[in-house]
Amino acid sequence: MPDHPDLAGIEAALAQAKLAIELDEVPVGAVVTRDGVVVSRAHNATVARNDPTAHAELLAIQQAVTALGTDRLDDCTLYVTLEPCAQCAGAIVLAKLGRLVFGAYDDKAGMCGSVGDVVRHSRLNHRVEVLGGVLADECGELLQGFFRARR
Amino acid sequence: MPDHPDLAGIEAALAQAKLAIELDEVPVGAVVTRDGVVVSRAHNATVARNDPTAHAELLAIQQAVTALGTDRLDDCTLYVTLEPCAQCAGAIVLAKLGRLVFGAYDDKAGMCGSVGDVVRHSRLNHRVEVLGGVLADECGELLQGFFRARR
Repeated sequence: MPDHPDLAGIEAALAQAKLAIELDEVPVGAVVTRDGVVVSRAHNATVARNDPTAHAELLAIQQAVTALGTDRLDDCTLYVTLEPCAQCAGAIVLAKLGRLVFGAYDDKAGMCGSVGDVVRHSRLNHRVEVLGGVLADECGELLQGFFRARR
Repeated sequence: MPDHPDLAGIEAALAQAKLAIELDEVPVGAVVTRDGVVVSRAHNATVARNDPTAHAELLAIQQAVTALGTDRLDDCTLYVTLEPCAQCAGAIVLAKLGRLVFGAYDDKAGMCGSVGDVVRHSRLNHRVEVLGGVLADECGELLQGFFRARR
């Protein structure tokens, strides 16, 4: 899908995920964009930081609010290679992110449609526009290859 | 309830919440304990860090894994004055925390029983022992007083 408007964003997130592999981190990458411009980039850093909460999305959101000097990302899009977990979906709601685009679905821990839906929860005070499955195969194969090689 | 075994933990979390007020931060405090010993303490720091994700529980968990040199808190208890939101409930699951004790229930954003239940979700790979409502009135009044004064 060469003309898909979200392709560049997911490809930037994939580039982060590929960097993670070289550091022996679980290959999930994320970028935040505003007006099509990347304002933050991150990959999982749970090994380097010895911190199970150091997911790509959380780090990218924290860097974006710092970079933009705002605590509301309602005019931003988060691109991430894997459907966010509960923590990261919750962080997306706290940051009032406007739009979420993710690659592979996560049927074990994904909280943006798969196991539950935090980012479109009827009782929370913010709801996010969500597009899942963009470059899903490529994003998912990166993860599967990583875990296969470690078995 | 002078002999309640969790009273000291919630009181330590309340002390953190009271510190937050002096800094004009939303008064939520958290501590992590292991074998009855406090290993980390934090309060909300969203204003100071200009970061909407800087909740007391997330910061306390991150400090605890650093202090203990482990990425699993399964032998730890998190005490927090307010029922955790989705982000913090998700962080609790990621850190494989053993036990959660909280003060006031949060019927707007609480994801440990009120709006949803991330920490005891049947499809996630970790479930937490939960006790809510310990010193709930005192914990809740601290928050109500803070928001009343700002109106």
